Amino acid sequence: MLERIRIVLVEPSHPGNIGGAARAMKTMGLSQLVVVNPKRFPDPQADWRAASALDVLDAAQVLPDVDAAIADCHWVVGTSTRLRKIPWPVADAKDIAAHVAAQLAAQDDRTRIAILFGREDNGLSNDELRRCNYHLQIPAAPAYSSLNLAMAVQVVCYEIYQASLSEPAVTPWDRTLATSGQVNAMLQAMEQTLTDTHFLDAANPGQTMTRLRRLFSRQQMDETEVQILRGIIKHMGQVK
Amino acid sequence: MLERIRIVLVEPSHPGNIGGAARAMKTMGLSQLVVVNPKRFPDPQADWRAASALDVLDAAQVLPDVDAAIADCHWVVGTSTRLRKIPWPVADAKDIAAHVAAQLAAQDDRTRIAILFGREDNGLSNDELRRCNYHLQIPAAPAYSSLNLAMAVQVVCYEIYQASLSEPAVTPWDRTLATSGQVNAMLQAMEQTLTDTHFLDAANPGQTMTRLRRLFSRQQMDETEVQILRGIIKHMGQVK
Repeated sequence: MLERIRIVLVEPSHPGNIGGAARAMKTMGLSQLVVVNPKRFPDPQADWRAASALDVLDAAQVLPDVDAAIADCHWVVGTSTRLRKIPWPVADAKDIAAHVAAQLAAQDDRTRIAILFGREDNGLSNDELRRCNYHLQIPAAPAYSSLNLAMAVQVVCYEIYQASLSEPAVTPWDRTLATSGQVNAMLQAMEQTLTDTHFLDAANPGQTMTRLRRLFSRQQMDETEVQILRGIIKHMGQVK
Repeated sequence: MLERIRIVLVEPSHPGNIGGAARAMKTMGLSQLVVVNPKRFPDPQADWRAASALDVLDAAQVLPDVDAAIADCHWVVGTSTRLRKIPWPVADAKDIAAHVAAQLAAQDDRTRIAILFGREDNGLSNDELRRCNYHLQIPAAPAYSSLNLAMAVQVVCYEIYQASLSEPAVTPWDRTLATSGQVNAMLQAMEQTLTDTHFLDAANPGQTMTRLRRLFSRQQMDETEVQILRGIIKHMGQVK
């Protein structure tokens, strides 16, 4: 079950953190590591910190951007310490872990979950955070709340492993969940049509698309729902 | 409250882990670090990994052995991954954290708690583990359960911080708790008297003292109880 969870490190600077994250994952039963545009990787420091998790490190995928890392995922979580201008659904590590475990138990074997961890110095960008269904915050001391990157991976994986040990309540769904890529493509078509039909001002679009993105990220959409919305968007483009 | 918890790293090999532990502690509101007989410390690598927790690192006490690190503590926990020949009370990180928070809320301001973390390669010795009231195990994947030292500190401090946020049930006690040093001195007097009176065979003492140590470690003793036992031991030595 835990092999359906992907840990995504976005533009890490220090290879030691990539190795540390791999070890943290393996101690908690996770194995799918994706590294987006790393500064230095592979690197001997990553190997050293991985200790006996070299297999996780060696199997890590290196990808050029976040979209490539999450396109086929059905639920995407972004770790974040800042509060956003437009608030997104937020939960702590424990609640996210419980939800992850429940989803993996409920859905079919193809369900993929991605958890994004941002850069050591300034986390995930606003644009990356808007790609996420949920934001995750690790409870930490207000005086110094900045966990090391690999430590944050350890805490989140620890909670996921603990949640996976208990039997979550299973609520089966009647449709296949939409992937992040499908939802994103639908939102892009929506933005295009809303601009073409002059609902949005191309020169000054404001926050409307962010708010729509948040609306459709809050619940996980299934493929039928995405198809219905795409039908409506297409229809709207034709009747302008 | 959290300043009454002491994190004790026993003979760490890698200075990076000492710095990483300091950072892990500070992100969870802890500040009291003790390092027992480190291989390399202070060290630039420790400073680097500590990031903005240099204050915790600079205030760390370096001591020659575990007894010096815990003598004035009232509850001592040892992290352990192995099962012992004579089983000791064991709890996971979450339950230990709940107990720590409840104790700190219940007892007076002088109550001190120590949590021991062992060597990177082979943990705490049997003798060190017998100094503990409780053993702590972090739930981990059976295939690779060896967390990095600083990562283990992060997980335990994270659980303690979470437990400290909720209001634990308070059960006040009518006597001052005994320190680890007082209980240890009582046990040494007991061993001496049991040997002098030939209850124990000095040449072949067996596991009797370990079992007695476990008995008196399981509950936290208060000072009155220790005094009563010392009275009995003294009496026994005189009537032989």
